[in-house]
This record gives sequence, structure tokens and C-alpha cells, in this order.
Amino acid sequence: MQHISIDTIKTWERFYRANFINCLSGFKSASLIGTVNEDGQPNLAVFSSIVHLGSDPALIGFINRPLAAAPHTLSNIKATGAYTINHIHPSFVNKAHQSSAKYPVEINEFEAVSLEAQYINSIKAPFVKESFIKYALELSEIVPIKQNNTFLVIGYVTDILMDASLIEEDGFIAIENAGTMTCVGVDAYYKTERTARFGYAKPIVNKESK
Amino acid sequence: MQHISIDTIKTWERFYRANFINCLSGFKSASLIGTVNEDGQPNLAVFSSIVHLGSDPALIGFINRPLAAAPHTLSNIKATGAYTINHIHPSFVNKAHQSSAKYPVEINEFEAVSLEAQYINSIKAPFVKESFIKYALELSEIVPIKQNNTFLVIGYVTDILMDASLIEEDGFIAIENAGTMTCVGVDAYYKTERTARFGYAKPIVNKESK
Repeated sequence: MQHISIDTIKTWERFYRANFINCLSGFKSASLIGTVNEDGQPNLAVFSSIVHLGSDPALIGFINRPLAAAPHTLSNIKATGAYTINHIHPSFVNKAHQSSAKYPVEINEFEAVSLEAQYINSIKAPFVKESFIKYALELSEIVPIKQNNTFLVIGYVTDILMDASLIEEDGFIAIENAGTMTCVGVDAYYKTERTARFGYAKPIVNKESK
Repeated sequence: MQHISIDTIKTWERFYRANFINCLSGFKSASLIGTVNEDGQPNLAVFSSIVHLGSDPALIGFINRPLAAAPHTLSNIKATGAYTINHIHPSFVNKAHQSSAKYPVEINEFEAVSLEAQYINSIKAPFVKESFIKYALELSEIVPIKQNNTFLVIGYVTDILMDASLIEEDGFIAIENAGTMTCVGVDAYYKTERTARFGYAKPIVNKESK
């Protein structure tokens, strides 16, 4: 096993280093975020840093890169307070990844990558029609992360669209049965296979530790 | 496809609702966080909300639950500024999950769940010897999330321990070859299979959108 210090990593070529560090934190929640601007122009972009914050209230966060690198989703969320997060499945993972390209602001990425925008009731932000598990959020707060000019965007879940047959008897969602993918680094996507559910763990003090 | 509103979810039984919302955000980065208190007493706990914040500088965050629910890891990090994050593999996933039990503060979870603490050079926090990919961090900031009394803990990566053969030629780490697992909800663990790496996406405006 090799010991790699941050001083060594700092000497590495920029893209090599970015790939490496991006993989280190493990599997991530690849999802598409749908928004509209004040004029109703849709925007779609892939995000990998979705993070569960709490279930009561139902709060989910995501990390937005610095504004210079990724301005459109965040400015739309600021303008409308609304966004959707859509799971990614194998049938459209290539289109989902293509939405990471830097399209000009006037381009509708739904059209550019050939995914269908789906509007439900009075929810302003578009869902991805092709996604089997998707949810709408209402912006709560944009927390600036001063260390690197990224943002933690915090939202309340307001609406969920999914096939109810995915829900198991204790509320667990079998997202793998919908084909939801996970990702690593900036461009690798994975399918998954559940190996265990352990239930709620209670302390067991084993003999050796006494 | 069913439309479930948050007003419906609020009427659900507490644990059913928690399981459901916890699954919604998708696959998560199951990892073990190792710390010590001021007296050198080790602590080990499983966390699922590790989040990549940036690669230059190498910044990784994790979500810590409210202090009443999960005090030990956070108080140790505050006291020492040091912690390790360790990937979880099938050979010890049951032990990793068991570390989520609420052990009294005087219990060393490494011993309680039969995992080995590994100390390297002058790094205060213990690694999990059984883990094939693990890294040490230095605390930068603990950001309170006022909506639900959780915390975003931000740290700088300082040291990495892993088998260098996992690193591909562009810096990508084949974490699936180390057997790194991903998780969903509060207790489900998954193995993975890579299906694609797409590379850096550039805008392609297709014919239909013109």
C-alpha cells in the first residue's frame, strides 16, 4: 500500500490530479437537475454531489461549482426558487453526461441532448420525462463555501414522481430496480447490485474489548 | 408513475418516512471515519454523506447529524483537527455497519466491531487497516446547517493510503477494483460494475434543436 502525500499530489498535472481527487470520495449520486430561468427557458445539467441532509423536514443539498464554471443552474434556482433532481438510468446515461458540456445560456439542454422536459401541475421547474425517480425542491438557502468558491444549495423536497412499486414495505426505495446509476470521478458511471440490508444496529460489546 | 406530495409524506410513520427520504437522493459514499479524542481514545463510525467539494485544493466534506444524535466523531475532530475517511469493502461491511450503533463514549468502536486501528507517521487519527483506499484530512471548517441542526464538516486531504495499481493512466481510481461499496438509505449496501467512462463532454447542438 502506497502513502501519497498532498505535497506529491500538488506536483501532478492538473487533469490527472483532478481525476484522482474526484474519485477519492467514493461513489456519488449522479443526477440531472432541471431548472428554468425567469422567462421559462429550460436548463438541464448533470450533478454528482447530491447529499441527503435530513428526512424531517425532507432536506437535500447539492454542491454547485464556482459561478464562473457553472452559472446557469444556480442563477435559475435563485430566480425561481424551484428545481428538480432526476435519477439517471442506463437508457439515457450518455445523454445525461452530455449535459455536462458548456452550452451557451440560450441553448435548451433538454433539446440539445434529446431528453424530454416534463411539467407537472404548478411546479415551475421541468422534470426529465425519461427518469423513473425524480423529485422537485424549493430552495431554502445557498451556502457559500469560502474555501473554493463552491456552494451548498439546500432545498426542501416538495413533490416526488416515481413508480410506487419500487417502495418496499418499510419505506425503502429499491432504486436499483429502477436502474438508477451511480458515478465516480467526472465521467464514470456504474450499475449496482444490492448485497445486504442490515437493519438498525444496536451496540454489541464483544469479548475481546472487555 | 405516482405523484407523492410532501403533505402526504408528512402523514407517514416516522421510520417509514425516514427510510423513504433517505433513499431518494440516490447512491451514497459509505465510509468509515476514524478519530481520537484529546486522550487518544479511538472512535470509529460509518458515514454515508461524504461529498467531493473540489480538487485544487483537495477538499472533501461530510454531513454530521445533530450533536444529540452523533456527538463523538464531531467532538473528536474539533479537539484534534484530524480524521480519516476509509472506504468500505465486502469483507468487513457488516462490521462497518455495526459501527453505526450508539456505543457509549468510553467504548473503542474499532475493538467493539473488530476492525484494526492503523496509525501512520505523525497523523493523529487512526485509519482502518482493513480498508484498501483511505485518506487523512485536516479540519478546515464546521458549517452549521440551521435548517435541521446538522453540520457540513469541511477538510483538506493531507495523506492517502492505497494500492497504486488502482490508479489508471489519467489519474482515475478504479475504486470498484478495490471492492469499494456504495450505500442507499440507512442500511443497504451495494457492489458496483462500471459501464462507461465518457470523457470530457463538449457541446454538440443537434439538428432538432436548431
